Amino acid sequence: MKGLVYNGPRDVSVSDVPEPRMERPSDAVIQITRTNICGSDLHMYEGRTDMEPGRVLGHENMGRVVQVGQAVEKLKVGDMVCVPFNVACGHCQNCERGLTNYCLVANPDPQIAGAAYGFADMGPWNGGQAEYLLVPWADFNCLRLPEDATEKQNDYVMLADIFPTGYHATEMAGVGPGDTVVIYGAGPVGQMAAYTSVLKSASKVMVVDRHPDRLALAEQIGAIPIDDSKSSPVEQVMEQTGGLGADRGCECVGYQAHDAQGREHPNETLNELVRSVRFTGSIGVVGVYVPSDPGGPDELAKQGEVAFDYGLFWFKGQQMGTGQCPVKRYNRHLRDLIHLGKAKPSFIVSHELPLADAPTGYQHFDARDSGWTKVVLAPAA
Amino acid sequence: MKGLVYNGPRDVSVSDVPEPRMERPSDAVIQITRTNICGSDLHMYEGRTDMEPGRVLGHENMGRVVQVGQAVEKLKVGDMVCVPFNVACGHCQNCERGLTNYCLVANPDPQIAGAAYGFADMGPWNGGQAEYLLVPWADFNCLRLPEDATEKQNDYVMLADIFPTGYHATEMAGVGPGDTVVIYGAGPVGQMAAYTSVLKSASKVMVVDRHPDRLALAEQIGAIPIDDSKSSPVEQVMEQTGGLGADRGCECVGYQAHDAQGREHPNETLNELVRSVRFTGSIGVVGVYVPSDPGGPDELAKQGEVAFDYGLFWFKGQQMGTGQCPVKRYNRHLRDLIHLGKAKPSFIVSHELPLADAPTGYQHFDARDSGWTKVVLAPAA
Amino acid sequence: MKGLVYNGPRDVSVSDVPEPRMERPSDAVIQITRTNICGSDLHMYEGRTDMEPGRVLGHENMGRVVQVGQAVEKLKVGDMVCVPFNVACGHCQNCERGLTNYCLVANPDPQIAGAAYGFADMGPWNGGQAEYLLVPWADFNCLRLPEDATEKQNDYVMLADIFPTGYHATEMAGVGPGDTVVIYGAGPVGQMAAYTSVLKSASKVMVVDRHPDRLALAEQIGAIPIDDSKSSPVEQVMEQTGGLGADRGCECVGYQAHDAQGREHPNETLNELVRSVRFTGSIGVVGVYVPSDPGGPDELAKQGEVAFDYGLFWFKGQQMGTGQCPVKRYNRHLRDLIHLGKAKPSFIVSHELPLADAPTGYQHFDARDSGWTKVVLAPAA
Amino acid sequence: MKGLVYNGPRDVSVSDVPEPRMERPSDAVIQITRTNICGSDLHMYEGRTDMEPGRVLGHENMGRVVQVGQAVEKLKVGDMVCVPFNVACGHCQNCERGLTNYCLVANPDPQIAGAAYGFADMGPWNGGQAEYLLVPWADFNCLRLPEDATEKQNDYVMLADIFPTGYHATEMAGVGPGDTVVIYGAGPVGQMAAYTSVLKSASKVMVVDRHPDRLALAEQIGAIPIDDSKSSPVEQVMEQTGGLGADRGCECVGYQAHDAQGREHPNETLNELVRSVRFTGSIGVVGVYVPSDPGGPDELAKQGEVAFDYGLFWFKGQQMGTGQCPVKRYNRHLRDLIHLGKAKPSFIVSHELPLADAPTGYQHFDARDSGWTKVVLAPAA
Repeated sequence: MKGLVYNGPRDVSVSDVPEPRMERPSDAVIQITRTNICGSDLHMYEGRTDMEPGRVLGHENMGRVVQVGQAVEKLKVGDMVCVPFNVACGHCQNCERGLTNYCLVANPDPQIAGAAYGFADMGPWNGGQAEYLLVPWADFNCLRLPEDATEKQNDYVMLADIFPTGYHATEMAGVGPGDTVVIYGAGPVGQMAAYTSVLKSASKVMVVDRHPDRLALAEQIGAIPIDDSKSSPVEQVMEQTGGLGADRGCECVGYQAHDAQGREHPNETLNELVRSVRFTGSIGVVGVYVPSDPGGPDELAKQGEVAFDYGLFWFKGQQMGTGQCPVKRYNRHLRDLIHLGKAKPSFIVSHELPLADAPTGYQHFDARDSGWTKVVLAPAA
Repeated sequence: MKGLVYNGPRDVSVSDVPEPRMERPSDAVIQITRTNICGSDLHMYEGRTDMEPGRVLGHENMGRVVQVGQAVEKLKVGDMVCVPFNVACGHCQNCERGLTNYCLVANPDPQIAGAAYGFADMGPWNGGQAEYLLVPWADFNCLRLPEDATEKQNDYVMLADIFPTGYHATEMAGVGPGDTVVIYGAGPVGQMAAYTSVLKSASKVMVVDRHPDRLALAEQIGAIPIDDSKSSPVEQVMEQTGGLGADRGCECVGYQAHDAQGREHPNETLNELVRSVRFTGSIGVVGVYVPSDPGGPDELAKQGEVAFDYGLFWFKGQQMGTGQCPVKRYNRHLRDLIHLGKAKPSFIVSHELPLADAPTGYQHFDARDSGWTKVVLAPAA
Repeated sequence: MKGLVYNGPRDVSVSDVPEPRMERPSDAVIQITRTNICGSDLHMYEGRTDMEPGRVLGHENMGRVVQVGQAVEKLKVGDMVCVPFNVACGHCQNCERGLTNYCLVANPDPQIAGAAYGFADMGPWNGGQAEYLLVPWADFNCLRLPEDATEKQNDYVMLADIFPTGYHATEMAGVGPGDTVVIYGAGPVGQMAAYTSVLKSASKVMVVDRHPDRLALAEQIGAIPIDDSKSSPVEQVMEQTGGLGADRGCECVGYQAHDAQGREHPNETLNELVRSVRFTGSIGVVGVYVPSDPGGPDELAKQGEVAFDYGLFWFKGQQMGTGQCPVKRYNRHLRDLIHLGKAKPSFIVSHELPLADAPTGYQHFDARDSGWTKVVLAPAA
Repeated sequence: MKGLVYNGPRDVSVSDVPEPRMERPSDAVIQITRTNICGSDLHMYEGRTDMEPGRVLGHENMGRVVQVGQAVEKLKVGDMVCVPFNVACGHCQNCERGLTNYCLVANPDPQIAGAAYGFADMGPWNGGQAEYLLVPWADFNCLRLPEDATEKQNDYVMLADIFPTGYHATEMAGVGPGDTVVIYGAGPVGQMAAYTSVLKSASKVMVVDRHPDRLALAEQIGAIPIDDSKSSPVEQVMEQTGGLGADRGCECVGYQAHDAQGREHPNETLNELVRSVRFTGSIGVVGVYVPSDPGGPDELAKQGEVAFDYGLFWFKGQQMGTGQCPVKRYNRHLRDLIHLGKAKPSFIVSHELPLADAPTGYQHFDARDSGWTKVVLAPAA
């Protein structure tokens, strides 16, 4: 079958790869109908991880069940499903508490909890930017979709990662009705954090970025755009909040945060969040940070350390939650909102491309080319 | 009256100071019967804050009500009370949600939420290492004590700060029955964090320090002592937890963390916590960190920044709560445990001195002299 | 001054009553600009409580501060404020935990926690359906309003009770994004529960009633109207939820629940809720129930007992929260939503009357006359 | 094999029954080494349920894995495991949120969520008071035990039901350090609720019963015995709590609550709890109630309705959680406490009998014969 293969830094191609083969009675195989390019794919694309060449990328997947193992009880061939990016066994100590983001079984490396499809350090699982995908523990991992699945594919595919991930940022930050929220980063995840803050009736949703197209999109869904290339985002937040700072903050950028000149500062958004958020406020961080970053801008960064404004963080009595999203915690309820017409995350989609055009999609998305907000690939209808 | 006055780095004296004068109808005056020297007093004692010379120190206070304003309804002259170290108004947005640690009114500096008695940057309130103390918003700030108040003074005085603060560390870390916990620092607050973890039936309470007397005390209350001068504390925790790391972590040291040679490394305990705590674990930080530390060991530290192992923190999906303790959230229940004989935090007390000997107490406690675990001053009986 | 006085069952009049007189340094006096007639006033109006004749009713009050005591620090004469219906001291064990609905000080009856203005059994406090109102512990009890206070009076006055109370029902029920919710009762509080469920992005908000005007109003704000005079509301809910039942339920009727023929069945809405809500679901009850009801329909009711379908409630593993709303927990954030134009609870207002017309308002509202959804009185501009 | 068979009211026998046969690849078979008689077995034993004659009873099971299906990954033949009484699939909407007590798959009756071994209305699963037991979804349902499993069997077997169930009562009631707690019922589950309240450092644990042996046992673990045959338990609780009532309450009796004369009053413990618990307090109910009880004492009871003192419940603003315990939520942590010697629930065991003597055990336990606190059966070593 065809799959999008990582060959090396900024080099991907659509090549022939082996079709998935069922190995265990709890496996299923999915024909991919939609699979997205994610901002976190770009860390791998740019060669800033230890992703092995030859592997298929893609962790935002949905499709049609075409084969199920003998122990699969819930899924039937023909079901339309969305697959959380986390691979999880369902019966370990973490999964049983809902911490499917840190499954203790799905990643064979005993030093690492948590696994994902087509992701560096996240286990041997192939990605879904391909025609077919093997899904292990299929009853546990697949979310069945209702009868409008085909019609709303570009909405439902967002349940694999960015809609729940943006939601998770707001949950870790404790966003509720009437809160003021500041979100750093207006990429796809930041947009979803803004969108879910609006859905939760936050009183003010402020989104910090410097790309005019992204700021415009945030404004369109009801957020207040804050352009950090114009003046200090911290001061703009203080003005909006009577000098107190925002009740809640979300980090949706990650370790490759950089200034307007493109120089990376892994501490930039974190330190600005600490300054933008009020005493006693909470911060949710879903932007990716890595334990070591050999390609990082300085010695600290290479070791995964960040010159964090910890003194102020502590002095303000703030709290912080971090890490990958446990997609299964949210995907049913968000699916229902899509189904009932109360959420439409496909507003983020700028391009729907055939699988063959995936390399073009990577190139433009990586360049932050204006208008390339979110690329959806459609290997099958 | 007599009061313990800060004159400058490592220079305190018991001098004549003005008696407190009631200024508002909600004030009360307390005759101090017990007042402790706190580990956080040492930051001021050592000249590592901008404490103004001439001020009276002391924020762990209890005593007898001797005067009440016209608007005071609950307190009566003669009541024995313990006074939380936080000064709080009771009616601001933070106080009404129980965030008395970050009162928006008690600190006249509009940039700072939160106030305390006799503390640098925490408002104009005098400390209680003296014969008398003014307590504003007295009905809100004073906790009345039962009939055994005099008999158990060395227990009840711990309600002003370290017993609730140790408890708060375990609450922010989410310690519950059956959890494994690692606590960095076996000073008075670390001991209280260990003690409350034991009271909550944690399955394993591991306490990291290198002072034999402190480790012995921790062991005596049921904790597992971990001597970080012998071998890596992280490895010892991993051995105790089957390689997973502790469920919960508490930081009870703060920015003056130092190695066995006395060199300060503000990131030391934080980074070891991240490594000692499991994927998805929670960390509560009550050790003090400061937004700027002109006397700090390097450029980062002087700006209050910490070379924090953020990449690993995020990769493990950990959460962190920080800041000063909202004493009122816990002091009633902890008082009841003392009253009913189910908690006895005075186990920590090594010395009970008259006020006149306070300077000696500071000297020995600051030197971490063996056996000087906790000094209680007794200005009155 | 003029005030609405309760004379006896279904007999109220606007009469001369004594003006409030400041008694304690923490008191303030408010000139009432808006004060509502509440559904719970009808229990008193109908003679179904032991309300003493001669007292002034009214617990949904807002107005202008005209006098403040010497201990009042936050309020200034001229401030526009909304007053929570709960009277609370701010410093008792319950108030300091935010349980201002069950203040241990404001009600002189030692058997009863909690107090309110102009309410049977809820302490000696006069009501606000009058020209002026005494507010004790004024700094704690008054919520200051922003510059649009006058313009949006019919919104802000809802912060005194029904907007927070409806919100509280949904909080006790645990309503969050994507949940299905069923609300029994489309009176003012039920409408507010529906409205806040919509604000929280519940996926389906079902409102049960039989008055066409009320059902139409619920539909207008985005809820699904369920007419229980047409067919079983339980079956209608089951149809809407694929046979599972709603995730969450809210009771907004209370002990005078009655069938279409007007016969009271205090267990009716409770038992229908148990049947309408799914296994493991949660129910919030803000409709009023009373410990004894001498005018009740049968022996059980007279003793305050209800033939509750407890077996099914337990078998389904449901949870239930009850009681009056702690208004202060929510009123700031809801105020901000009004101020920023994100909530407009005045949609409920059908009539704005001068104080002199209050008796007419009571009469029509009590009769559930079509279109008399919510009556606001305006003693002053 | 041999199994304890229900023949009819108060008639059980140890008979030959078919050995379990593996049906699905996720099944396992366990050789039972310990299996308890539970208080809830008595409802069936007494003929107060619609239990079908011929079925094997027993839902508190532990043993040795003797056979595993092809899809079982975690369990190995020879593992010692404890089996939660709830049967749960692990992948339905409830299981994935940890609500294994209300699995939507394991019970084939579409009207009922939740299943259990050998239990009326709880699905077709055979009980474990036998030599062998089939465990479906074995990886999800079995808790592996450490190397001291054989030595501490009478402790570990309590993890199947009563230790977690008692714990769940205190969790639903919100018991924490310093709280006062009242527990109705000093049977095995009530003892476990008391024991876990002590483990959580509640300040006062009051246990209401009238059997001297049970009250003595409660006192032995640190609780305050309250004999309701001597005087009003409500008054005794009020005396212990300064007239306020307990912070938290647990119901561990259920619908067959009766007075000293043996007359059943299904509302008795519930109404006394409402009176014993303070305004704003929380109540956890793990005693069993049933949707219909044809053998009940009156018309209300027959329909599963209870004359509940709802007016007072609401007036006091209390909360209530109900239902069966989700054993998996607690069993790992409680296992660790047993393993580390910090909990020893076997204190409850009065009799360890061979399987053949099960009928005798039922007879004495049902009669509440003095000293027959808890019967453990040992089909194998």
